Amino acid sequence: MSKYCEMEKEALKDMLVELKAEYAKIKEAGLNLDMSRGKPGPDQLAISAGIMDALTSEDELKSETGLDCRNYGELCGIMEARRLMSEVMGVPTENVIVYGNSSLNIMYDTISRSFTHGVMGSTPWCKLDKVKFLCPVPGYDRHFKITEFFGIEMINIPLTEDGPDMDLVEQYVNNDESVKGMWSIPKYSNPSGVTYSAETVKRLAALKPAAKDFRIYWDNAYVIHHLYEDKKDELLDIFEECKKNGNEDMVFQFASTSKVSFPGSGIAAMSASTANLDFVKKQMTVQTIGHDKINQLRHVKFFKDLDGMNAHMMKHAELLRPKFDAVLTTLESELAGTGIAEWTKPLGGYFVSLDVMEGCAKKVVAMCKDAGMVLTGAGAPFPYGKDPKDSNIRIAPSYPSPKELLEASKVLALCTKIAAIEKLIEA
Amino acid sequence: MSKYCEMEKEALKDMLVELKAEYAKIKEAGLNLDMSRGKPGPDQLAISAGIMDALTSEDELKSETGLDCRNYGELCGIMEARRLMSEVMGVPTENVIVYGNSSLNIMYDTISRSFTHGVMGSTPWCKLDKVKFLCPVPGYDRHFKITEFFGIEMINIPLTEDGPDMDLVEQYVNNDESVKGMWSIPKYSNPSGVTYSAETVKRLAALKPAAKDFRIYWDNAYVIHHLYEDKKDELLDIFEECKKNGNEDMVFQFASTSKVSFPGSGIAAMSASTANLDFVKKQMTVQTIGHDKINQLRHVKFFKDLDGMNAHMMKHAELLRPKFDAVLTTLESELAGTGIAEWTKPLGGYFVSLDVMEGCAKKVVAMCKDAGMVLTGAGAPFPYGKDPKDSNIRIAPSYPSPKELLEASKVLALCTKIAAIEKLIEA
Repeated sequence: MSKYCEMEKEALKDMLVELKAEYAKIKEAGLNLDMSRGKPGPDQLAISAGIMDALTSEDELKSETGLDCRNYGELCGIMEARRLMSEVMGVPTENVIVYGNSSLNIMYDTISRSFTHGVMGSTPWCKLDKVKFLCPVPGYDRHFKITEFFGIEMINIPLTEDGPDMDLVEQYVNNDESVKGMWSIPKYSNPSGVTYSAETVKRLAALKPAAKDFRIYWDNAYVIHHLYEDKKDELLDIFEECKKNGNEDMVFQFASTSKVSFPGSGIAAMSASTANLDFVKKQMTVQTIGHDKINQLRHVKFFKDLDGMNAHMMKHAELLRPKFDAVLTTLESELAGTGIAEWTKPLGGYFVSLDVMEGCAKKVVAMCKDAGMVLTGAGAPFPYGKDPKDSNIRIAPSYPSPKELLEASKVLALCTKIAAIEKLIEA
Repeated sequence: MSKYCEMEKEALKDMLVELKAEYAKIKEAGLNLDMSRGKPGPDQLAISAGIMDALTSEDELKSETGLDCRNYGELCGIMEARRLMSEVMGVPTENVIVYGNSSLNIMYDTISRSFTHGVMGSTPWCKLDKVKFLCPVPGYDRHFKITEFFGIEMINIPLTEDGPDMDLVEQYVNNDESVKGMWSIPKYSNPSGVTYSAETVKRLAALKPAAKDFRIYWDNAYVIHHLYEDKKDELLDIFEECKKNGNEDMVFQFASTSKVSFPGSGIAAMSASTANLDFVKKQMTVQTIGHDKINQLRHVKFFKDLDGMNAHMMKHAELLRPKFDAVLTTLESELAGTGIAEWTKPLGGYFVSLDVMEGCAKKVVAMCKDAGMVLTGAGAPFPYGKDPKDSNIRIAPSYPSPKELLEASKVLALCTKIAAIEKLIEA
């Protein structure tokens, strides 16, 4: 395929007529596809069905310490669930708290607590004139919604193939006391699939924050969410690296089984230094008597340990691979060499990140929508929903079938071409 | 029995020698009893065992609207769970949000949100110099811990047999703009067992708050927690009464199945006016993708409806009655007529509230503790843990067996007598 920008306008115009005719036909036929959210498909839910039978009334429902899981108590979660999640997150068991079903809720809570009660004794953020967060982009829209909800000023940090632009991160964190946090999805990032390089993790761990209550929000949402058995990204242990720099308290890590067991009914966890967790527990003891320990026990009974969970993740991978393949091969066959789009080829996670020609993302998403195909809103992966280049589109291939994804990706490629050509002709 | 205060000092001294000898013997033998928390007994947990089998991998796990409960979504809870909790709380389904396992967490969240984002558009409380809450006493220690955690000034309001002292409530709420809330457990109150009279509910509903963001925190924790089939307290519908006064937005109601199904793994809910819930949802949509819908479905499948739940509550009552009886008959036989103690005889809820002679509660609790019997800390049912009269002791009879409770109540009565006589002799 030739690069569109090198083509004659007349040739482009001819192509546009054809493409538009094709689009009109598709629009008339009408699609009904949703590629908007990283929502596991029904086939994925089915492989976790056994979790429903993991505990019955025949079971004693006691934790390994003899605690009746049905009753009140055990604020930080039962020990075996903490151990399981500690294996997932690669940290000591005592540095893990297991919560309810939502890691997003833990993150919200962490920021909300910082506003009302500060961080390990610092001034509550609600008393400050300005609080800023660094936001590697493209990133997770729900992260940015939390910081936006609290009126936190969000600063875009470009995400490279190695992770966030570290020169920029160091410049902000080490000099600006109002920078209190940085969002990050260090492994198979949402939406780009990037895993932070060892160098990036080392530089993050060696930050010298101007604000003593600066924290990295290490959302390890896809920590074991590989797509291939034989090709896996590796992520350096940030806690270990932090220790070397006396920065033990600088990281809050989050993880959940939302995309391991059931999205609505998994277990979520946080890990951090003992000093951080001691501070968190002061709030937790006021906030609740404890989270759902039966569901914690159910998860441990079903998965047993990290090996069990990893084996389970390969079943997810088997179901997800054809879906990612459908998207990637279509984008490849339709768009490779056109010079109007770039996209990621992740080894894990839940997304493909597509960059269309600058100024075209909104248009492409709108055209897809008109044809009956819902994508994440253009701009969503950026703070305030504003993609400065109007170029990024997040594709979530997990929910539709491979067949649907083939069809959808073709439409997406078609709209990408139409928008690009219209722009090139105008120019 | 003669009133201790009318007895000669010498007679009291003789009695004290005998009582102390008895106490020394008990202390030597050593007890191991916990009457500190309103924790259901293992026998109560057993009657809900069937909930563990309510859903299995054979079930479709879809809500009545066809939603897959295993997946993300349905922020406010599945409709059938909202309906069930709406029946429990006596409000329309659309005015109910079903959350996770903890109503305490909802209350914490409600106050935390008010601090960071205000109430339906009001100034966030963190921007105010002073925020006050009215606290009917004795009350629930965990309520008071939340308001204390946020630095809210708590004002004691004496709880009479009809509910909070309404003259005082009106005086504060209608005149002081910094009074933003009032805690209340309107039915079978913790710990006194009092249910607010119709007159009290009417006066509450007719309040004319100086602060437009004043809310009554209507913690209906024991709404269906009767001890007797034929003797039940009735509570007027506060929302209906509020409507008559144009005060629809003044009440947040909370309830849960913590003491219906399992304390650690129940479902919790909030009800409020549409305007209030619309504001709450703006936060919720940022905070989480949704709560555990499988557990919601499990509860609906097990209980079916309010009738099913009420029938279940009578099984709890059968188990709880002998426990309450053990405490009440012992207090009656040991302390009636002595003039040194008064106690409640509740028709529901989880507590007996004992008032010992002024200035003696701490001493009694400490003596019991020395003998191996844990009671709720004296003062706990009051803001800041300070009982102005040092007189109130909360008894939680649900966890120990009736036999243990007989023994424990005797020790409690014994310590009550010793402390009272020592005080009378000193005087």
